[in-house]
Amino acid sequence: MSCSTLVAVLGRGVVGDAPVLHADDLGLTRGDGCFEATRIEVDESGRVHVDHLDAHLARLQRSAAALAIDVDEAAWRALLDEALAAWSVPGEAVLRWMLTRGRESDPTPTGVVTITPIDARTTSAREGITVVTLDRGHRADAFADAPWLLGGVKTLSYAVNLAAGREAARRGADDAIFVSSDGIVLEAPRAAVVWRRGERLATTPTEGTGVLASITCDAALSAAAADGVPVDRELIDVETLLAADGIWLLSSGRLLAPVTAIDGRAIAVDDGWTERMRRFVRGR
Amino acid sequence: MSCSTLVAVLGRGVVGDAPVLHADDLGLTRGDGCFEATRIEVDESGRVHVDHLDAHLARLQRSAAALAIDVDEAAWRALLDEALAAWSVPGEAVLRWMLTRGRESDPTPTGVVTITPIDARTTSAREGITVVTLDRGHRADAFADAPWLLGGVKTLSYAVNLAAGREAARRGADDAIFVSSDGIVLEAPRAAVVWRRGERLATTPTEGTGVLASITCDAALSAAAADGVPVDRELIDVETLLAADGIWLLSSGRLLAPVTAIDGRAIAVDDGWTERMRRFVRGR
Repeated sequence: MSCSTLVAVLGRGVVGDAPVLHADDLGLTRGDGCFEATRIEVDESGRVHVDHLDAHLARLQRSAAALAIDVDEAAWRALLDEALAAWSVPGEAVLRWMLTRGRESDPTPTGVVTITPIDARTTSAREGITVVTLDRGHRADAFADAPWLLGGVKTLSYAVNLAAGREAARRGADDAIFVSSDGIVLEAPRAAVVWRRGERLATTPTEGTGVLASITCDAALSAAAADGVPVDRELIDVETLLAADGIWLLSSGRLLAPVTAIDGRAIAVDDGWTERMRRFVRGR
Repeated sequence: MSCSTLVAVLGRGVVGDAPVLHADDLGLTRGDGCFEATRIEVDESGRVHVDHLDAHLARLQRSAAALAIDVDEAAWRALLDEALAAWSVPGEAVLRWMLTRGRESDPTPTGVVTITPIDARTTSAREGITVVTLDRGHRADAFADAPWLLGGVKTLSYAVNLAAGREAARRGADDAIFVSSDGIVLEAPRAAVVWRRGERLATTPTEGTGVLASITCDAALSAAAADGVPVDRELIDVETLLAADGIWLLSSGRLLAPVTAIDGRAIAVDDGWTERMRRFVRGR
């Protein structure tokens, strides 16, 4: 970890750059836990701004409930406050916090917070990215009535999400968009997909699809609706997506990444709309 | 971790009961790595026997290759030798080793070994278990031509496997058997399924199904074939499974767990065949 990364541990506070997780922690042995990540920014006066902290804390509660792991919200808020108070690097950073089921020998949940300066790959994605579509292996309705599949739960078990990113790179693209086995556009491995058709914006519904409820996407689409833009939640196929008037990936670190090509086919990019979307993501 | 658990770390050797993993290790942050586990036994003379070590090392190599993580096999063998040499607790234990992609700030793979005495829940499962069937959300052929879905790769991203175990417990059962969305029997969350029809034994094929290539199952079915028992790899539905003359879950720790009921329906148990299966699992 670079010296500029900060680490804090639930029950201990801010710690140095030493190992924090035991060998029998279920977060390591089974990816058994959940996490949140959001963007923070330190302004010229040294003040730290955190994007959507309450919404991220609420989503962690939902993920933990789906995993049957207890969350001590007051302890988490205190730990996040302590970590943020100790952070003063100017500019953007990613605040991430992870909750595991704890050790096999001691089922007290483990909590770890990191703050890391945002990397160049993340910020450059805001200029535009190419993507490939990848089959996610399940139908668009696979998660209805199957809570053990953890659809929409932001677990630490992200190996497939990262493998999809490597497959995209192998094909010369920057990122991927998952498609269900019945041909429905789902989400990116670490971002939501939003498309524009004419004056309407849309994204994939989360119910039954396993798609994560993206806080950045929800905030942007709420701002768009408040600005008079019709917003839909709809199941569309890849051909319909390819015919969209604009496509963006939305996530808490990159914020807004305009998609310039899918599977080698150019996607329409309207700079005016992308600038408008940026304002929606910023909530204004 | 109890005092009787041993921990060793790649590049360091046997260590004490202190944290071993950094906060930015991809094994924690993304479940991005793979693992192996096998049974060991210390006999009266203090000698350690390890089940199928070469086969487990070969499977780790395959998992790591699928994840594009380098494996230094000589270093792993030396570390496992060191851990085993330091272990002298009489009776059975589980040897587990985990390989992660390393830290976000330093992509040197992380390797951790643990040895833990086998627990009572594992040994009692050998007397018989009840199971429920759970939809796995994908078709039986979902993993053909989709390597990014990591079918058959023993990753650290096991959150769904553990959630399935909790769902089984919630329904009053000991374990689960995953079924594909098109109704095909796949595997248990942490074990292979073997069934008997008359004088034939069978299990689910691994090709395309995402089913892990179980070393315990392969060894047992090879021993059965050597004993003249016909062995099939076949796709069957749940009704066909329920009509089997015997069903067992096979895995490296529990070894052989006879299934006594599925979804509340009693399953035939033939003690003679279970004893025969035990001999096949032991390779004799």
